[in-house]
Formats: sequence, C-alpha cells, structure tokens
Amino acid sequence: MITAGSIGQQPTTRWVQRLDAWWRAANYLSVGQIYLLDNPLLREPLQPRHVKPRLLGHWGTVPGLTLTYAHLSRMIMLHKLDLMLVTGPGHGAAGLNAAAWLEGTYSECYPEISQDEDGMRRLFRQFSFPGGVPSHASAHLPGSIHEGGELGYSLAHATGAVLDNPGLIAACVIGDGEAETGPLATSWQATAFLSPERDGAVLPILHLNGYKIANPTVLARIPRHELNSLLIGHGWRPIEVAGSDPTEVHESYADAVEKCVLGIREIQGAARRGYGSRDRKWPMIVLRTPKGWTGPHEIDGKQVEGSWRSHQVPFAAIREDAHHLACLEQWMLSYRPEELFERDGAPVPMVCDHRPLGTDRISAKPVTHGQVQRDLRLPDPAEHAVEVPMPGTVVAESTKRLGTYLRDAMRLNEEQHNLLLFAPDEHASNRLDAVFEVTGRRWQLATEPGDDHLAPDGRVLEVLSEHLCQGWLEGYLLTGRHGLLSSYEAFAHVVDSMVAQHAKWLHTAARIPWRRPIPSLNYLLTSHVWRQDHNGASHQDPGFVDHVLNKRPELVRVYLPPDANCLLSVADHCLRSHGLVNVIVSGKQPALQYLTADEAAAHCEQGLGVWRWASTDAEGDTDVVMACAGDVPTQETLAAVQVLREFVPDLRIRVVNVVDLARLASPEQHPHGIDDKAYREIFTDAPVIFAYHGYPWLIHRLTYRRPGHDDLHVHGFHENGTTTTPFDMCVLNELDRYHLALAALERVPRVTGRLGHVRQQLLDRLAVHHDHIRRTGEDLPEIREWTWTQ
Amino acid sequence: MITAGSIGQQPTTRWVQRLDAWWRAANYLSVGQIYLLDNPLLREPLQPRHVKPRLLGHWGTVPGLTLTYAHLSRMIMLHKLDLMLVTGPGHGAAGLNAAAWLEGTYSECYPEISQDEDGMRRLFRQFSFPGGVPSHASAHLPGSIHEGGELGYSLAHATGAVLDNPGLIAACVIGDGEAETGPLATSWQATAFLSPERDGAVLPILHLNGYKIANPTVLARIPRHELNSLLIGHGWRPIEVAGSDPTEVHESYADAVEKCVLGIREIQGAARRGYGSRDRKWPMIVLRTPKGWTGPHEIDGKQVEGSWRSHQVPFAAIREDAHHLACLEQWMLSYRPEELFERDGAPVPMVCDHRPLGTDRISAKPVTHGQVQRDLRLPDPAEHAVEVPMPGTVVAESTKRLGTYLRDAMRLNEEQHNLLLFAPDEHASNRLDAVFEVTGRRWQLATEPGDDHLAPDGRVLEVLSEHLCQGWLEGYLLTGRHGLLSSYEAFAHVVDSMVAQHAKWLHTAARIPWRRPIPSLNYLLTSHVWRQDHNGASHQDPGFVDHVLNKRPELVRVYLPPDANCLLSVADHCLRSHGLVNVIVSGKQPALQYLTADEAAAHCEQGLGVWRWASTDAEGDTDVVMACAGDVPTQETLAAVQVLREFVPDLRIRVVNVVDLARLASPEQHPHGIDDKAYREIFTDAPVIFAYHGYPWLIHRLTYRRPGHDDLHVHGFHENGTTTTPFDMCVLNELDRYHLALAALERVPRVTGRLGHVRQQLLDRLAVHHDHIRRTGEDLPEIREWTWTQ
Repeated sequence: MITAGSIGQQPTTRWVQRLDAWWRAANYLSVGQIYLLDNPLLREPLQPRHVKPRLLGHWGTVPGLTLTYAHLSRMIMLHKLDLMLVTGPGHGAAGLNAAAWLEGTYSECYPEISQDEDGMRRLFRQFSFPGGVPSHASAHLPGSIHEGGELGYSLAHATGAVLDNPGLIAACVIGDGEAETGPLATSWQATAFLSPERDGAVLPILHLNGYKIANPTVLARIPRHELNSLLIGHGWRPIEVAGSDPTEVHESYADAVEKCVLGIREIQGAARRGYGSRDRKWPMIVLRTPKGWTGPHEIDGKQVEGSWRSHQVPFAAIREDAHHLACLEQWMLSYRPEELFERDGAPVPMVCDHRPLGTDRISAKPVTHGQVQRDLRLPDPAEHAVEVPMPGTVVAESTKRLGTYLRDAMRLNEEQHNLLLFAPDEHASNRLDAVFEVTGRRWQLATEPGDDHLAPDGRVLEVLSEHLCQGWLEGYLLTGRHGLLSSYEAFAHVVDSMVAQHAKWLHTAARIPWRRPIPSLNYLLTSHVWRQDHNGASHQDPGFVDHVLNKRPELVRVYLPPDANCLLSVADHCLRSHGLVNVIVSGKQPALQYLTADEAAAHCEQGLGVWRWASTDAEGDTDVVMACAGDVPTQETLAAVQVLREFVPDLRIRVVNVVDLARLASPEQHPHGIDDKAYREIFTDAPVIFAYHGYPWLIHRLTYRRPGHDDLHVHGFHENGTTTTPFDMCVLNELDRYHLALAALERVPRVTGRLGHVRQQLLDRLAVHHDHIRRTGEDLPEIREWTWTQ
Repeated sequence: MITAGSIGQQPTTRWVQRLDAWWRAANYLSVGQIYLLDNPLLREPLQPRHVKPRLLGHWGTVPGLTLTYAHLSRMIMLHKLDLMLVTGPGHGAAGLNAAAWLEGTYSECYPEISQDEDGMRRLFRQFSFPGGVPSHASAHLPGSIHEGGELGYSLAHATGAVLDNPGLIAACVIGDGEAETGPLATSWQATAFLSPERDGAVLPILHLNGYKIANPTVLARIPRHELNSLLIGHGWRPIEVAGSDPTEVHESYADAVEKCVLGIREIQGAARRGYGSRDRKWPMIVLRTPKGWTGPHEIDGKQVEGSWRSHQVPFAAIREDAHHLACLEQWMLSYRPEELFERDGAPVPMVCDHRPLGTDRISAKPVTHGQVQRDLRLPDPAEHAVEVPMPGTVVAESTKRLGTYLRDAMRLNEEQHNLLLFAPDEHASNRLDAVFEVTGRRWQLATEPGDDHLAPDGRVLEVLSEHLCQGWLEGYLLTGRHGLLSSYEAFAHVVDSMVAQHAKWLHTAARIPWRRPIPSLNYLLTSHVWRQDHNGASHQDPGFVDHVLNKRPELVRVYLPPDANCLLSVADHCLRSHGLVNVIVSGKQPALQYLTADEAAAHCEQGLGVWRWASTDAEGDTDVVMACAGDVPTQETLAAVQVLREFVPDLRIRVVNVVDLARLASPEQHPHGIDDKAYREIFTDAPVIFAYHGYPWLIHRLTYRRPGHDDLHVHGFHENGTTTTPFDMCVLNELDRYHLALAALERVPRVTGRLGHVRQQLLDRLAVHHDHIRRTGEDLPEIREWTWTQ
C-alpha cells in the first residue's frame, strides 16, 4: 500500500508557484536519478527495464536540499547576493545534481548531459552507476567545495570560505545527523572568530528532518527552547521554519532567509561603518521539515515520509514487485512533470527562469571552482637564512626563522588578503611569533588587559581544535587562497580522517577541467616526537606521515628538513605549490645548523644527497652509509660519525641526508621517486644505517624493492616514550649516536675484529651519560668541536 | 619584581580551615614537584642546586584541580559518595600526584615515595624527570582512568565510566581549553543517553581559568548568560562558583558541590522510584578562578597569576637569577608549610584527616584500577555458525551471524550489566540487528511513533559521533567492563588519535602491578572499502589497520576473517581477551562461505594456513602461492584459482589464507609472528601473489625480511575508489580474479610460453564483464560451480 506524499495544495502567489515548480522539478529529477535507467519523462508506462538494477542513493535529505537551493536562488536574485552553498548532507547529491542541471551549469560542465530528454536520461543513468558520479556531492558537482561523504565538516568549510571574502555569504546546510559529530559541534564557535568587517558571513541552516539511518537525532528531539538556548549560547540568532505544507513552508522559509540576509547586512554594515557591537548575534535558520518530504508517505503499511525509513532508497523491489513499480510511477507523476518539462525535456520557462544569471548561479560560482585566485607573493628564503660558516657550529631555532619568513610573507600579501595561518593556540609556543609583529590573532569576543595580540581582523587563527583549524584552512584553500597549519606532530592524527577526505577531493578535482588547481594544504608538524621535553608519551607520535603517504602518491609530499635553512627552502616551495598535501616535520628547539642558504636550496631541490663534508669515504670505496632523515636523526647521525672517527679512524663512512621522503621510492611508486641507478649512486653497495625520524618500517616500505635493501637497517621511533631529556629519548629508541655507531660497526666485516673492544667503550660512555641524566636531569652536553672532511 | 599571590585571609570556619590547609599543602607539593630536586621542606635557604635543571610542568591548572579534589573529598566524607574523578587538564598532574600523596595512596602504590621528607623529596624529584613520571596524568597516577595529554576526551571517559554503574558519580574537570575541541563539544550531549536508573551520574566541572597557552578561551569570554544558555541547551543545570578569595570560594564551591550531589540524588531517586521526568536537568558546576591561582601575581612587571603566563612554569631562570630564586622561595613559603607538615615531612593531622577512608579516597577507587570486573559470559560461536556443506556454496551475511551471537551474549550477561555495544547509528545497517530482540538503543529524549527500538536502558549506544562511541567505550573498559565498537571502516580514522592514546595508556598500565588488565578495546570494521556500493570514494579507506599496527606490537591485533564462521571465532576470541586493541575487518554483505565452524575455529587459532581443498599443488611441488587476507580478496583469489584451473589445468597452485595479520611478522616483530621455518613451510619457495584487503605495502612491511620476499607480489587498494559494483571496484584496483590469475601466470616460468594466449582470453573476458557492468549497472554473476581438489 502506498499513500501519496505531501505535494500540498496549489500555491496562489506567483513567486511561490514558480519556486514550487522549480522545487518539484528538482525533486522529480532526484527521484529519477535514484531509480531510472530510461524513460526519464515517463512518456511510456514505467517498466522494470527502465529501472536500475542496483538502487543506490539517499532520498531522505534531498527535498530539504532542493527546497533550500530554490529559496537561496530566489534570494540571490532579489538581493543580488554573492552567495555560495555548502551542503553537509552531501549524500543528497541527487538533489544538487538536479539543481545544477536546472540551472544549466551541469550541461555547461558536461555537454553530453544536455538540457533535453537525452541529457536527462544520461543525468539519471550516471548517478551512482558504474563509470558515473557518486551518490554524494563530490568534486564532480559544479558549485560545491564540500564532499559531504564523511560528516562533520560543513560548517567549518563554510567558515573557511568566507574568511577574507567580505562580500560572500556561505549558506551551509547542516544535517541533524552531522550535528552530533564533534567537529560540527565545535564549529558553532565560528562566531567568536568571524570578523564582520574583514570576512563574509556564514548562514547556517540546521536541517532537522529528525532521523539518521535508524535513530532519531538528538537536536530534533530536545525541546525547542533548549535548541534555541544552545544556538544562542553559541552566538547565533536562530529563526525557525517548520511545517509540512509546501506553500506554508515556502512563505515562511522565504521570510526567514530574507530576515537572515538583512540581519547579516545590518551586522556587517554597522561594523564596516565603525559601529560594530560585540553583542551581535549572527542570524541562522532552523528548518524542520519531514525526512523524505513529498516522497511516498507509507509503503506496505509502514510510514516512510517523515521517518527514518526514507533515509536511503524508500522502496527497492521495483523490478520484482509490480505494485512497487506502480508506486514509483505514481510518486514521480505526483510532481506533475508535464507542467515542468517541455516535450524535448528542457525545463519550461517558469522553471528555467527561477535561477540567477551567469556566475550568480549557485552551481556556477567561480570561487568554488578555484577560479578566483591571486598569486601569493613570497619573500626570498635566503633573507631569513641562518649564517652557517661551518656545519654544526651555529645553533638556531628552525621555526623561529620560518616565523620571520612568514611575517614578511604576511606583509607582502597585506593588500590581497590571501594568506592565513592556523594552529591550535601554538604559534608563539612553536616560535612563529614574529608574525605578531605585523598581525594579530583573530578574535571577536571581549578582550582584557594582558591579552596577547588579539585583533578582530588578525591573520592568525588560533582555536584549540585541530578539526576547526583544518576545516577552516580547507575552506580557505578550496576558495583559492593560501595557508599553513602548524600543529604538534602527535596531534595531527586528530585530523587523519579530514586529510584523507581532502586528498580524495584533490584526486577527483584534478581530473575536472573546469576546476583550477587550488593552493596546497600545507602542514608544519613541529613540537615533534623527539622534543617533547614538557609533555611525554601522550605527545609522541610520528605516524601522521605514514597516514598521508597512504594517499595517492601524486598528491602527497613529506619533507624532513634537517635545519633552519632547509626548512625555509622547503616551506617556500610548499607555499608556492598547488593541488598537493605537503607535510613538513621540523623541530622548534635550538638545534645545530648545517647548510648555508645556497647549500640548503640545492640540497632541498635534490631532495636527498651525500653530505661530502661529513663523509670519510671516497668514490667507490665506502664501508658504510649513515643515512638520516629528520633534524634529530641528522644530529645523532653526525655525532655517530664523530664517534666512529674517534674510535675507528680508518672507517670509510658516507653520510646521506634525506629531506624529501618520497625520493626513496621508485618513480613508479611516486612522482618524486628516483630510479635504481641514482639510488645506487647515492647509497652505494655498502650497508646502510638509516636514522629516521618516525616509525622505521616506513623507510622499508619505500625501499623494499631497492638494490641492497637486505642490508638497510633503520633506526627510528619504537613507541618508547616518556618525559625525559632529548638524548635519553634517543637512547630509549636506539636512535642515539652510540647505538647508530655500533650498528654501523656491526655491519662492516672489515672492522668486526675490533668490534668487541669498541662496543664496550661505547656502551660505557652511554652508561655514563645515562647515569648522569637520570641523576641530574641534565642532558648530554652538545658537541662543540666537530671534525669534518677537508 | 614579584607580588604575592592570593592566599587570602585566614578562614574562620573549622571545615574551611581544614580544607584550605589541605589545599595549601597540595599546592605546596605541586610547586615542589615542578621546581625542586632537594630541600623539599625548605629547611635551609633555597639554593640553585636545590632546583631542577630543566623545569617542566603546567602550574596554571593545578590550583583548580587541587581545589576541586579537596571539595570532592569533603563531599565524599559528608555524603558517603561513591565518587571518582576524571581530570581533563591532565597536564596538572603535579596537583593530582600531590593529592594522592596526601591521601597516602601514592605511598601505598610506590612505597619508596613515603609520607615523609625522603618520600617528599622523591615525589618532587621524579616529576617530569628522566626515569620518573610524566608531567601529565598517566596510568602511573592512582585513581585516574584518563591521561589528559591530548585534550578532548574527559567528559566522554567520565560518561563511559558511569554507564551501568548506578551508584557511581564521575566528577569531571573540563578545562576551558579542552572545551574548544570537537570531541568535548559533542560530549555535552551525554544527557540524551545517560539513564538515571541504570547509570551513575557525571558531574561536569567546567573550569574557566580563562586562558590557553597564549590565548583567552572562548567559553571564558562569551557573556555569562550565553554560557548558561549553551549548557542549558545541552541539558545541564549550571551552577557558577567564581572568585579569587579562597575562603569565599571555598564556601560557595562547597555549597555548589552539595547542591549537585543532592540534585543528582533527586533525579536518580525519582527515576528509580518510577517518577522520572524527561525534563530533568543534570546539575553541573562552572568554576571561574584565576589561572595559576595562589602563584606569583606578577613577575618582572608582568601579570602571571590570572594570566596565560602562568600556563606552564611561571618563571624559570631560578638557577641563574637570585631574585627569581627568592621569588620561588617566597611563593612556596606563602603556603605556610610549617603549618602543614610535621618535622618528618608527614602531613599534620589536620591535613591528613581531610580525606575519605580506604577505597573511598579518590586516588584509591578500585573501579579506576580495573579491580572491579565480572567475567563476561559468552555463547558458543558454533551455535551461530553457518552450515557449510561444501566451500563456496552457501551465501551468508557474516555480521548477521555475529548479530545473533552478540544477542545471546547480551542475554547471558543480562544480570551483570557488563557488556555494551557502541556504533555511530549503524547496528541495523551493519546487520547486527538481532541484538534488538533482547535490548534497545539507549535514549532518554522524547520518543515518537515509529521509533525503532529506543529504550531508556538499552544496551546499544548509537550516536553519530565516532568520538563519543570511542570515548564512552574507553571509559566503560577502563572501569572493567566489556564492549565492541562497530564502525564503517573508513571512518575509524576519525578516532585514530584516540586509539593511539588508549594504546599508550595500556602500554604504561601493563607495567603497573596495582592495575588489573582491563578488557580489550574491540573494533568491528564493517561496510569496508570493497563494498561501498552506496557510498563511493569518501567511504573507502582501509588504513586504520596501518595506523593501529604502528602501536606497540604486544598490544595490537588485526584480524581479517574470510567468512562468517571465522568472524564468529575471532570475535569470540577478542571479547574474551584483556589489555589489547583488537581490530576485526569483515563485510556485512551476502558473501560466500568456506569453512565449517570447526574448520574456522582451527584456522583462526592458527591465524593463517594452507587451504588444501582449494589448492592444486602437492607438497614440495608448488608453482605459485595465491595468498589472501580479507573476505573480498579471498573470494577473488578462489575465483582466480578457478580461472587458472580452466585455462592452465596443470598449474600447481597453493592457496594460503591469512586471518591474523601479525602472523606474517617475525616473532621478534610481533608476539603473534611465526618463525621463518614455519613461514617457508606455508609460503614455499614459489612466487606468492598476495591479495590483501588494504594498502598493499602493509604486507611488504610485515614480510620484508622473509625468505622469498623478492617474489612476493601484493595486490590491494590503490586509492582508486568510486560508487560502482563490487567487482568493478576490484578491477579498478587490480584485485579481481583476472588480474590475480594473470599476475600468477606471469611469475611461473614453466607456463609463460602459454601466457600470451591466456592473457588475451582473460583480458577479453574482463572486457566483457566491464562492458556489461558499465552498460547495465549489473555486477558479475557469482560463481555457482566450483572445482575443488578431491
């Protein structure tokens, strides 16, 4: 048994008629995408063969999305808005595809999906179909910057999009399922950061259709006054639109959207005229409409419209069950397609005209396709370089140098407003505080004496949520601007899932010609595993790099600069790049410096190379290769070479430093990979002791097909962590100079005769240090006198 | 210049005097831990040599934690409460160590840290010192179940702890920094799930000390009425305690805590007498006190107390600057230690008596040490087994079988209330819905007709937040109960960081004798990468396993059961285990079944093995090994063998199936690893084509030192995903039967003469399938007729 859905009575007002017709058309097209292979206009009685064999898609959220789209489009036309749309319930892609098709954009982007019957058939067929487009919004969808497959990031993306876009409104549909996630729950705090002067506005539309897959949602079931109270507490002014009669909802929704637009203009206008108030409440909408609205109300005696049963495909036995087939036909015909589409399948003028023109269409916003970009101006890294007269003699904090570089970058882009920095409250503690000479921390709430560099239009965003930092930065990048996220290395794992989703987006977007490559997602992971002097085991985890390297190789880069000048070179390179995920791992503590600016630039360009000045071998005459990647491993490797020079002066050692980790892979594995010949020239046939910053097996994974891999021995982090001195941390994980030196000696047959004697001396020395550290809490004194070749 | 902190005037009431003395003692001991190596009682004038060379710790949050501890202890005594404490700002471990020492528990757990001057010296010295304890709460801390290094999980842990613990109150200090994180922001929703009958109560204490490392906090700077509004919206009744005069704060804090306790008792009492109301608001406290309270008010002309400058070590140049040294001494003396400690260093009776007795002490709660456990009763997996008369002839949904097993497990533990299931709204969609025959989904909010199995005391917790599912489950396990988290495979990455932290906790806890091993953290990852028929690329990511395998090998297990009976065997094993993180990956879709219950039990016990019935080789006479791990790879491997039997009937193939991934490692790498001899017996010297469920390099990482690794060829997921048919997904990643068969042929020199001919036929067949799928949307028909050996 099927009961008709709530198509409702005939609207009387002209604009409601038009909007409702558009909405019906979009819903018709959505149902068609979920169900039909053929017969898109139902010109002939629906047959099983017209229906897809696998029915995949999410109907429940669609009518809310199409309704919202219709109302926003109307408001764009009425008020000439610069408005984009982010849809959290991305699984409703059928509705969004339909909208883009009605707007003509879909056919502009995909000419074969034309605005006629053939195009409609192709639109239906491709949806959730092999070789077609997914059932959730993806980079395929014109006008979208948001995937909506994994839930939780819509509001953060919308917030990031309007940062530094003062004319833009990012409307953002938030599903009540998504609203239960942590990232979304904290995203409401955007009100404390968005500047009414400098930024555009976010217009959240919390869509309470009441159900998830099988459960009601929390926000739909708490009392209305509590929901209001919650949103007000977050700095918003909620306006409720509720109902199940389309005409009534159209009228109240139109009214609510207009109130929001006027409210936004009032807040921004006042602030921009200098009369801004901290008491402002940004308007938003709470939309309560039935899940699967206008779909079948009841099937086989069970409620579908307005219930969790309409979440995905409301009924699916179409090919087998003639009654279900009839239900589907009846459902589609209830939208009165004959009023909506011409004989050739094109939308009738009434439907067609319900759309803004050109790039005002939601699906044609250039800002969502990376088409609005201003080139980033960057300073010369050499101007911020450390003077290094001799390797290992100067101490500097690498990130401090990067701080002055970023400060100058801020200055150079002061007018174009296209660079922002993000971190969970750590720019100063991560030694990037030079940026505060030219800008502040964005902050809209009350200030108090003693506050440090808070500013309503600050270009540094700090909030104690990696999710928000990442989500805001993604939104900022996806709309064509540039940024950097710095984080404690261990806590980058908080956003593992987000970076995976972003990489998927980049992967798809790269193959879509009307999307311009967007600036890269750049991470600076500092306060890393080896220097958690304050924090201990909970802050020690170098695995983010492993996670990122599981993504498509053409999209991901990992850099481990050994010193400040290399960090500058690498960061400069990353900030200039597009379409990538770049991860830079670099300590913030005072550390030895090795390369001059020129040497660093050349070394980073190569990505890896022999450090001749630290080596004692001659071409074709190497006993052992001491390789290293990462600042602390580099320091310990060089110290190990000093130890070996002292104890086994005739040992022929080659030092290899790796900055760009992907160089270790083959060219087939990664575009930065080097071929076996080049690999062998660098690593020789000798045994290799590799001191690596993170989990050692990552190096094996990159090199297992390399010649000589059987004699590659990696030292790295073995999850032995605690609060202790930097040197003791190395000892705990056998990454220290003595263990490295011993490992080298053990692998060189020529010297193993002397091994027993040397081993005892090295272990004795290690024991002395260890004892000293445990007794006094003081670390190993730094090496002040190095012996270099020449 | 230093200005004295706010020690305040002399309290008049007796209980305030006692409580304040205890508080001063705890603060004194905290400062001592951060700064001193020696001279703990300041018996002689403070000298540089008494001070630690590296000053590590977080003072800012300490006075709030010790204050809270003091008040909760008083309330335990007054009202005979069963109360435990979770402290989000875990970096204030100095304060918590101090409290546990004052309660005597520290000395009971660590006899060398006795309650006298020597013990006090050791307490100070070990803090954030090489070989000692970290600066944040960790498993070392008696009474703690929460690390507090990574922020965001305190309230979720507290919530998990009180589930099914009706008599327990879990007080939970939430830092205002932590409150900005996503996981914490969504944790407030616990009110929608906690049953006043079945569960205990959480008492959140939101500590607004106003600052993070360098920024003010959002919740401390929004207007008070907004904060109230926010918390009320989340279902809480906030009671504010604010001030900077200790005596005043003591009085109002005591009053507030008592109100909360009475409020909790009232709600629970009414509900348990059958008069519960859905309108209830759980009481909580908003505590506004200065950051670094009672510390130096000003140093070198800059405000410290009440400012972000007191976040970590308020002043650090003690060894170099005589004035700073004097400041430190003055600060410590301001607590009037002579009133607090006897000559021998023991706390004076007034301080000592301010503590509950025995296991009522916060630091001695058996429930926080895994000491309260009831054995889980589990059904016989064989009772839920699929009948498998012949491999590959029966189709079943693996997780559906697990569902009936879990249903019976629920029944068996009905009275002991020690098993809960957690998932983000997916038990039904993941086919575990048999559990709803015996229990419901826990839900305290309003219900409506058509709701599906909601129940106030349901034993299934569903909320659309992986963070909450994980956090609640961790809290439940850490207090000695059992559970399972099922999740879409891809979205397990949402909790990457949480599982890493939990593994660190297990690592430390395993070495602490007074902590009993807690039940394992069990994941069921279903809706996996190969069967995202509905969802597409955003839902395709098998990398959680890679992340987990980066943790300490003795703690982590990964299982890939190939069919339902193996899933049952593995799940049963995991639920019985303790102290581990177990990850099970298994599809939910109808799939072929291979092993009987007995065969499955034996195969899972071995962890990997030769499937003779699927092989065509004889001992010592193998052309190629077709290995597989995971349900879809197993199916494609067996189908590849059928293809090879058809085209190259004389090929001698061995089929190896791997359930327990760690078996591939060596015994040195992982306790489940097998030695090279056993490995060779299984994998022979022949080339190995390995079809793996996830990223292929994980298999290489586990096997790179194995004999024959050069001839091991892994097929797996290459991040080529979309919404398509299951077979098409395999083809896109070359994990399908034809690519596997071709890969095998290419590696067997004996048959390469015939390769060209066979290759073309296989590619033709692949092309036919591919074309069929793209044209019709229908997948490959299943193989119905298998040829097995014998």
